[in-house]
Amino acid sequence: MSRKGGSGGRPAPTAVVLLSGGLDSAVAGAWARAEGYAVVALTVDYGQRHRAEIEAARKVARWLGAKEHVELRVDLRAVGGSALTSGIPVPRGGPGEGIPVTYVPARNTLLLALALGLAEAREAGAIVIGANRIDFSGYPDCRPEFLEAFARVAETGTKAGAEGHAPRILAPLIDLPKEGIVRLGASLEVPFGDTLSCYDPDPRGRPCGACDACRLRRKGFAAAGIADPAADRAG
Amino acid sequence: MSRKGGSGGRPAPTAVVLLSGGLDSAVAGAWARAEGYAVVALTVDYGQRHRAEIEAARKVARWLGAKEHVELRVDLRAVGGSALTSGIPVPRGGPGEGIPVTYVPARNTLLLALALGLAEAREAGAIVIGANRIDFSGYPDCRPEFLEAFARVAETGTKAGAEGHAPRILAPLIDLPKEGIVRLGASLEVPFGDTLSCYDPDPRGRPCGACDACRLRRKGFAAAGIADPAADRAG
Repeated sequence: MSRKGGSGGRPAPTAVVLLSGGLDSAVAGAWARAEGYAVVALTVDYGQRHRAEIEAARKVARWLGAKEHVELRVDLRAVGGSALTSGIPVPRGGPGEGIPVTYVPARNTLLLALALGLAEAREAGAIVIGANRIDFSGYPDCRPEFLEAFARVAETGTKAGAEGHAPRILAPLIDLPKEGIVRLGASLEVPFGDTLSCYDPDPRGRPCGACDACRLRRKGFAAAGIADPAADRAG
Repeated sequence: MSRKGGSGGRPAPTAVVLLSGGLDSAVAGAWARAEGYAVVALTVDYGQRHRAEIEAARKVARWLGAKEHVELRVDLRAVGGSALTSGIPVPRGGPGEGIPVTYVPARNTLLLALALGLAEAREAGAIVIGANRIDFSGYPDCRPEFLEAFARVAETGTKAGAEGHAPRILAPLIDLPKEGIVRLGASLEVPFGDTLSCYDPDPRGRPCGACDACRLRRKGFAAAGIADPAADRAG
């Protein structure tokens, strides 16, 4: 059924899937599985997270049937410079202009760097990231030019690249608005209730309902005409 | 006296210097200081290190007069794939062909990613890395093509880049053989005795004298006609 594995008897190629516990990465992971990849999930705790987000990532990894789930921790609070990793409050008044304070300096570069090392070590043919440029147009590291530049890093800076088989950088959601991501996720039966999008959940892991991530998610489900099973957890 | 700061009364521009505790990064840091940069040192403990290496990096950072020394830890033993982060023995028989087993998958990509985030958060104009392609020609992530590709990542994937002032990626040692690095370090009065190059020091922090890093260092000092004050610590 899948395009890349299964029926021919050959083992499925491996993809490292960056899994945050949020909606987008869960849908990206479901896409990778549907494409026939065997999934190695990678969750990076960079000092922003509540336990609930890690737990959400674990549930999604189990649902994906990941053959491995690697959790790495690097505490970016020593770096700071973002509302997600420092004392700057997370805005709850709706999206503003320009690059938001929730931008974490070079975050996707770091996530992709860690995924690249793991992809080399596991001989994976692809890295899957849930970045999308529509809703997060303010984040420079969600743009296609950035992902293309990183693909060149993978080609020039790895053993796999030197041997001519650098892992591909796949961003299946890059052109989808949130509504489209919800629809794609629904078609792939993603367990939305297991995902957590909020930038600032309460200590029990319930979304705040007011940050940009909560607003975008609510709008996306509403536009898709699909009920969000996680919404009733909002405070 | 310096090219970038000091005499004009303007504050010196900041450079994030990747400092491992080894010889090359110490010389690269000394170069950055001589160029007039105020140094923010970054040491990444990626699971390979003995305390002696961190201590060496701290001594060098103090000698550089770093205005800050950030230490980040990310345990790549969960990723593996290298003699430096797994149970694979470090070779002691001299350099072989191709990419050595001491290559850590995507290591310099990870180091530069962390440096890039720190450079953004500190508004640094440059990142300095001690990579050189002569002695480490087997490591794909020590080549100019890789550093150029990463510079493009910095331009496209950061807030600073979107504003037209992405940090520059500087590799002042890229074309120098070890002998030249030793000579440059001597001219900048680098405290060689505080640095540790060995891939596999003993528990007391003494270099093994037999791994590729120890061999290269010995050859470099000999060719430069300079005594290595750290050599008498070798077992």
